Amino acid sequence: MSGIWGNKIKLSIFGESHGKSVGITIDGLKPGIKIDLEYIRGQMKRRAPGFTEFSTARREEDNFQILSGYFKGKTTGTPLCAIILNNDTHSEHYEKTSDILRPGHADFTGKVKYNGFNDYRGGGHFSGRLTAPLVFAGALCRNILEERGIIIGSRIESIGTIKDKKSFDVVSTDENMLRELSKDKFPVLDEDYCKKMKDSILKTKSEGDSLGGIVETIVLNLPAGIGDPFFDSVESTLSHLLFSIPAVKGVEFGMGFNMTTMKGSEANDEYYMSEDHKIKTYTNNNGGILGGITDGMPLVFRAAVKPTPSIAKPQRTVNIRNEKKEILKIEGRHDPCIVPRAVPVIEAVTAIGILNLMDE
Amino acid sequence: MSGIWGNKIKLSIFGESHGKSVGITIDGLKPGIKIDLEYIRGQMKRRAPGFTEFSTARREEDNFQILSGYFKGKTTGTPLCAIILNNDTHSEHYEKTSDILRPGHADFTGKVKYNGFNDYRGGGHFSGRLTAPLVFAGALCRNILEERGIIIGSRIESIGTIKDKKSFDVVSTDENMLRELSKDKFPVLDEDYCKKMKDSILKTKSEGDSLGGIVETIVLNLPAGIGDPFFDSVESTLSHLLFSIPAVKGVEFGMGFNMTTMKGSEANDEYYMSEDHKIKTYTNNNGGILGGITDGMPLVFRAAVKPTPSIAKPQRTVNIRNEKKEILKIEGRHDPCIVPRAVPVIEAVTAIGILNLMDE
Amino acid sequence: MSGIWGNKIKLSIFGESHGKSVGITIDGLKPGIKIDLEYIRGQMKRRAPGFTEFSTARREEDNFQILSGYFKGKTTGTPLCAIILNNDTHSEHYEKTSDILRPGHADFTGKVKYNGFNDYRGGGHFSGRLTAPLVFAGALCRNILEERGIIIGSRIESIGTIKDKKSFDVVSTDENMLRELSKDKFPVLDEDYCKKMKDSILKTKSEGDSLGGIVETIVLNLPAGIGDPFFDSVESTLSHLLFSIPAVKGVEFGMGFNMTTMKGSEANDEYYMSEDHKIKTYTNNNGGILGGITDGMPLVFRAAVKPTPSIAKPQRTVNIRNEKKEILKIEGRHDPCIVPRAVPVIEAVTAIGILNLMDE
Amino acid sequence: MSGIWGNKIKLSIFGESHGKSVGITIDGLKPGIKIDLEYIRGQMKRRAPGFTEFSTARREEDNFQILSGYFKGKTTGTPLCAIILNNDTHSEHYEKTSDILRPGHADFTGKVKYNGFNDYRGGGHFSGRLTAPLVFAGALCRNILEERGIIIGSRIESIGTIKDKKSFDVVSTDENMLRELSKDKFPVLDEDYCKKMKDSILKTKSEGDSLGGIVETIVLNLPAGIGDPFFDSVESTLSHLLFSIPAVKGVEFGMGFNMTTMKGSEANDEYYMSEDHKIKTYTNNNGGILGGITDGMPLVFRAAVKPTPSIAKPQRTVNIRNEKKEILKIEGRHDPCIVPRAVPVIEAVTAIGILNLMDE
Repeated sequence: MSGIWGNKIKLSIFGESHGKSVGITIDGLKPGIKIDLEYIRGQMKRRAPGFTEFSTARREEDNFQILSGYFKGKTTGTPLCAIILNNDTHSEHYEKTSDILRPGHADFTGKVKYNGFNDYRGGGHFSGRLTAPLVFAGALCRNILEERGIIIGSRIESIGTIKDKKSFDVVSTDENMLRELSKDKFPVLDEDYCKKMKDSILKTKSEGDSLGGIVETIVLNLPAGIGDPFFDSVESTLSHLLFSIPAVKGVEFGMGFNMTTMKGSEANDEYYMSEDHKIKTYTNNNGGILGGITDGMPLVFRAAVKPTPSIAKPQRTVNIRNEKKEILKIEGRHDPCIVPRAVPVIEAVTAIGILNLMDE
Repeated sequence: MSGIWGNKIKLSIFGESHGKSVGITIDGLKPGIKIDLEYIRGQMKRRAPGFTEFSTARREEDNFQILSGYFKGKTTGTPLCAIILNNDTHSEHYEKTSDILRPGHADFTGKVKYNGFNDYRGGGHFSGRLTAPLVFAGALCRNILEERGIIIGSRIESIGTIKDKKSFDVVSTDENMLRELSKDKFPVLDEDYCKKMKDSILKTKSEGDSLGGIVETIVLNLPAGIGDPFFDSVESTLSHLLFSIPAVKGVEFGMGFNMTTMKGSEANDEYYMSEDHKIKTYTNNNGGILGGITDGMPLVFRAAVKPTPSIAKPQRTVNIRNEKKEILKIEGRHDPCIVPRAVPVIEAVTAIGILNLMDE
Repeated sequence: MSGIWGNKIKLSIFGESHGKSVGITIDGLKPGIKIDLEYIRGQMKRRAPGFTEFSTARREEDNFQILSGYFKGKTTGTPLCAIILNNDTHSEHYEKTSDILRPGHADFTGKVKYNGFNDYRGGGHFSGRLTAPLVFAGALCRNILEERGIIIGSRIESIGTIKDKKSFDVVSTDENMLRELSKDKFPVLDEDYCKKMKDSILKTKSEGDSLGGIVETIVLNLPAGIGDPFFDSVESTLSHLLFSIPAVKGVEFGMGFNMTTMKGSEANDEYYMSEDHKIKTYTNNNGGILGGITDGMPLVFRAAVKPTPSIAKPQRTVNIRNEKKEILKIEGRHDPCIVPRAVPVIEAVTAIGILNLMDE
Repeated sequence: MSGIWGNKIKLSIFGESHGKSVGITIDGLKPGIKIDLEYIRGQMKRRAPGFTEFSTARREEDNFQILSGYFKGKTTGTPLCAIILNNDTHSEHYEKTSDILRPGHADFTGKVKYNGFNDYRGGGHFSGRLTAPLVFAGALCRNILEERGIIIGSRIESIGTIKDKKSFDVVSTDENMLRELSKDKFPVLDEDYCKKMKDSILKTKSEGDSLGGIVETIVLNLPAGIGDPFFDSVESTLSHLLFSIPAVKGVEFGMGFNMTTMKGSEANDEYYMSEDHKIKTYTNNNGGILGGITDGMPLVFRAAVKPTPSIAKPQRTVNIRNEKKEILKIEGRHDPCIVPRAVPVIEAVTAIGILNLMDE
């Protein structure tokens, strides 16, 4: 079991969906960094459940309390621990149905791994609720990165089969546009397609079903030279964190899988010297990373988010205690599409990963 | 800089392409494990350069020497170090051209990261040659896993735009077929398409260009319950290692990116109780992993390998010393397509990752 | 800054003396372990301040709250976080005097390390108060070890210049005696000398001065074969943790420094085969450890605890802001001798270290 | 089993006494550091066996080969691996006697830990020979520290019952004297007592017995502010490494165990402002460390080295295979006193530990 990650910025995460609280300890922050609590609250609200019709009805304010490492408005340099209390829990439901395995969830694998001793209520430690402390830590790291001019932003590239009509300019991305996207609760480049995506989610919700999607993220103004190969390449570091987010099933950098259909002469990003004497590339198929190290071009990656496994439609499953077949209709309160709430989580782990690599 | 990976099985990798040797220390192996050196040699030959027309002409036998941790045919339980000497190096070429940045390579990023002090000959520490010790370590781990009945195999799913016509059965994969693939130097399910892929590589080679491709890997007979979320999920662990392999730009598990176009009711893998009282799923869209933990179904993932950046075609670049434009034609000896040689490397890191998670 | 320790049992500690709380996250506990909360409370009371005349008057109940990883009376296998709120803080005093460096404390070194941003109130993160979460974690680990028959106990070997008259039998230590000592708040073998030590502390207290001492600890029933050399020997693991305890300035195993005055023929512990076919040694000069690995004999070590630096006697110091000389008389509430309260902390880190090595 | 240590400067050690080689990989060195190979050779000669009458007759030149991470006389920033071949091995002896447990050695504990699969020849991985790569790594780190003005030196404080008559001035240690000591193969402050120690060793050798001793080490010119509490204090870091050295059984910082007999008013190091506006202490009882962090005063510690367990005198032991009693007379070639050869090892791990803490 490892709730600990990192070498320079170290995270220690804890909590269960229906326990007293979820939380995180961040170790390795430099002392004297001013923290903008309003900024962090803003990011947490982007993730918090219960505030839009695309999310679960479980409403959590996700107010955090900083327990340590923070003094007179600044980091102390000692471990900073923050907790987020769980309030709106309806645990009774889970007590009754804990033996009926929900397809697509960690009910079965969690029971096997923990010999049945794990807290099964609301997914326990596997709950998406654990991403609240991740967003806290990420917002804090992001706050630090922004002071250095580094901007992280994302768009929802697709929801189900609906793809955004516009594309990012991955060679010279517009900073202001990226900043705007990073505040948006449903960031899509093309407005019409944004509406189509939303309509699609509501329709699917009404059918008792769910949708997934793809999130594309860009990081601007990273200096060249970040990343620690052999093993701690930028790709290794970010993918490690991205795949920790429940529901992420694929990660690709730059042109990713599509790069395999290009020839070397098409895929290679050729160099030129810019007017301000910086080495740049004409294209950015490698997504700003060569040899596992940033090359100064925008960092670009995509993450695949699977459709929420909790659906109202009847599903075939088994009762793990008596081995009997069951037809399960999940009632409770669930997200018809987790993608919009995944965006701030993806951005959060990106900030954590980047700061960890930069401050080494 | 991190050449160290792992918590239970720990790797420490070292070496440069044109230095004295490359090597690896494996820490955490249990004592008394019989090692089949012939088996390891077989895996290393799958990766070794110079033996097929699809690979570089640099010919290295990749003979390894075990320096420690191995006594009377068995592991001692103390760190096992193996080195592979570099023999067929032509370093002169690199001395002359070290300031001209090869597009798609780590020449530029390596120079920035190491302030120009890195060994640039043949890519130095960034060379694909570093995968030789990885294959050694992986073959050793795989040897151990096979004793436990665990089988790892792959197929080349595509080379460039040519896709294998057949598909893996990811619900009940044939063990023997997978074993056969795992010995093959160019494993494709459909023979005709295998030939088409090979022809395509040779044609591209003759044009002074290169190709990439996708490798699909399956691991059979893994017990349910492996993986250490929150941070060390199976996906996080394997993607971390896979993205350490030079040229890998995308990783997806199960249906991966395609899962985002499915609805929850299609994507969820429904449960049933098998006749031998095992909990199984009808489909395997999640690729054998739920909540970051194995569920006992075949583990399935795909890795995108970009086209080899070393090509003979002229490319625009700059000389980093005098900032002048250059047109570069890479001569030397290079792989027109690295995908076949990437297969044993992908399987190697898979074995390492799995053993690290299992022996925890 | 590292508040994280361990590889199998991982600790993440946080908090400051006058902040909201101190706490600890314990990662890597196996699932399904029954935890005896009363037992933990008992150990925490041995350390808690304000209950004897030998300790500071700051009275803290040290009630802990478990936030995660604990469900239906048992560990879940996911990270277990516990916090202990700070109640009886008198912070005003520290605000006024924060620039006057207290000799023997971390005031100066903390200010340098954290550029003046650390929480200076009550020693902040350097406070002995951080040992409360350590005792929590240690009591939990000890609870687990006791189920396996492993007993940890200590005696105060000396306070100042007063040495206990009796000695431990380090070859065949009495289990029951050790168990009794492990509940005692002032464990000394000889009753008369125990009283002398106490009198000495009270006398020194009345003089506005403080005392240190030596704690000797024994662990019984450890199997042979525990310890992970080369670097993670039993001595390395335990000394690392012991020197994390504020005030510990020396650690020795077995005969320790006195072993340097013995000849090899005297120091070597000769072997014999016991009646129950166990390999034992006639003597135990090596303190139950050979080559960094337990040999099945009682594990024995001693830790030197320096006199409490907070004293009422006037001391020469400087004001770090204006660089002026100062004569400092520390008023506040302080322990005239920290040794009795250090005993449960030493035992706690011993339990943590041993469990971490055993569960590998 | 952990042959890996460190977080910024990471070591990975491997090898056995009678295997092909011993070696070490050092990860995390900054690129472009000029390495003085002669300096390293000099340190390795201080440790190498067979060159004085106080050491074993096994003569090893301890010539090292750097395999990676070193290019054109400087570090590359990638992992630096060095190996030292084993030459003068007489393994036959060990084959015959491998079941007879040598008292004071790791024969028994090694067999238990590795289920009998460890390489028992010459102590295998537990051999003092593993300190050769440690001295290599340490000399390299020390070379780097010296460029920053940091000086490490030691004296043998005692051999057996003979104590050096002079003492270090721990408040203002003479730099030149310390530098001289650091080249000496038998560094003692008082010349007469140095001779007495040597005579004592030769006499004990003639009796077929062995001696131990205490080494006192000082580090000069360390800036204040180094050390990473809570867990990675200077004391924790150094003691962890020191106790990895075979034969070390005690470690104390500053006044160490003797500090327990002082009152707070005597033990506290009072502050004053020096003429060059540095905060200094009148005394240095804390050995340059407060709260686990350096305070700018000389760093002082002592390590207890037990007498070599290999002695010619008859000892009682057992044959682990047939459980029979044996009387063992160790023939072979052994050090009558390991203390002089331990000095460069102690200094080496000190340099490693300090550089690891400084470069964080």
